[in-house]
Amino acid sequence: MSSPGPEDRLHALETRLAALEDREAIRNLIASYGPLADSGNAAAIAALWTDGGVYEVGGYGEHTGHTAIAALFTAGTHLDLMQDGCAHLIGPQHINLHGDHATAVGHSCVFRRTDSGFEAWRVSANRWELAKDNGEWRITRRSNRPLDGSEAARVLLALEG
Amino acid sequence: MSSPGPEDRLHALETRLAALEDREAIRNLIASYGPLADSGNAAAIAALWTDGGVYEVGGYGEHTGHTAIAALFTAGTHLDLMQDGCAHLIGPQHINLHGDHATAVGHSCVFRRTDSGFEAWRVSANRWELAKDNGEWRITRRSNRPLDGSEAARVLLALEG
Amino acid sequence: MSSPGPEDRLHALETRLAALEDREAIRNLIASYGPLADSGNAAAIAALWTDGGVYEVGGYGEHTGHTAIAALFTAGTHLDLMQDGCAHLIGPQHINLHGDHATAVGHSCVFRRTDSGFEAWRVSANRWELAKDNGEWRITRRSNRPLDGSEAARVLLALEG
Repeated sequence: MSSPGPEDRLHALETRLAALEDREAIRNLIASYGPLADSGNAAAIAALWTDGGVYEVGGYGEHTGHTAIAALFTAGTHLDLMQDGCAHLIGPQHINLHGDHATAVGHSCVFRRTDSGFEAWRVSANRWELAKDNGEWRITRRSNRPLDGSEAARVLLALEG
Repeated sequence: MSSPGPEDRLHALETRLAALEDREAIRNLIASYGPLADSGNAAAIAALWTDGGVYEVGGYGEHTGHTAIAALFTAGTHLDLMQDGCAHLIGPQHINLHGDHATAVGHSCVFRRTDSGFEAWRVSANRWELAKDNGEWRITRRSNRPLDGSEAARVLLALEG
Repeated sequence: MSSPGPEDRLHALETRLAALEDREAIRNLIASYGPLADSGNAAAIAALWTDGGVYEVGGYGEHTGHTAIAALFTAGTHLDLMQDGCAHLIGPQHINLHGDHATAVGHSCVFRRTDSGFEAWRVSANRWELAKDNGEWRITRRSNRPLDGSEAARVLLALEG
């Protein structure tokens, strides 16, 4: 077997590097969710999803499209959280990359300020489905369900083989 | 001094890229622990370790090999946690790579559901020792000790120079 | 339009790889803060900053330079935390890289041991400004403010466009 030539080596490097860049872009996309949520930037949060993207928030329904997703952050529970003081901490996610699609799986914790400190108000399982479109990664679906002992939450944590 | 030629540049790129890929693989391996633990996938958790790998769980003994490690997730405390609802959130770890060996150091937090929300049930220092075998990273030893003010826990957090 | 030649491809790979290495180095630098803090390694923490680096700790003042930053970890509140048992968990940060400068934005949570477990004692917004000097990334400024519902904390979470 002969060694690969320069052209093959360049091509292999370009392919492998692109995969790492994709993973980094996905990680940074997910890392932007918390800061945007806690600063109430509803339009920028919605833009993390594709046009027809879906955000399923366990206990708060399923929301499709930018307008519906943005609306979650301009009313009700979210404004109460921001007024009290909150942190949507998204832990490191396990990322599976398949070309222009990817899944990410992991935990999130919403901390809420109390009279004496902070409480872990909501701790959830998350499954993110992502797609690359015009060179940019976006969320096509995020499912988030509190880890309340139910099988429904646990199934989100299944990892691909 | 002459500039490096294409062969040297290709070789340097291959070496540097491989190091980033190793770090990414280690990060993803560690990020799989929580989802596997919280969904009760004992066999898949055990397979994160090498055949003779060791999992030292502060207060719960030292467990060697896949059978012993898997057994931690099919009985007792772990099943109680899963029934209540739990999240093994592993924070970002500091990774030190040395060829086919690596260490990772950082925090973990096990959240447990209560009547009113979630509690930070166990917050620990972690030291992971990892090795690459047949192209795959595995854990050779993970030490986990609750940060209870003891020196025993703090020493796990020592970073290499 | 002709395809890029080998020289252009090598150059593009080197530039893209260096950007990923920079991001990885920043991630690892930030991931070292918690382990160093919780093991009380004041000198090593201070060395994460540049010589004239600034650490603004909401409620505890602004501290400039290695001596002042190290002093935060050898007295008062920090020693109390370590005696009780603590974990400075720094969540994944959103990283923005601009050549030899970068910003990182995200959450941190200081867990503190109580009689019955752990409490989320301080949950904060963080903004890190970093610079690369002699090939090494260092913090030029970290601002940390508890997420107490104030606009002052939320503004730290603003992301660059």
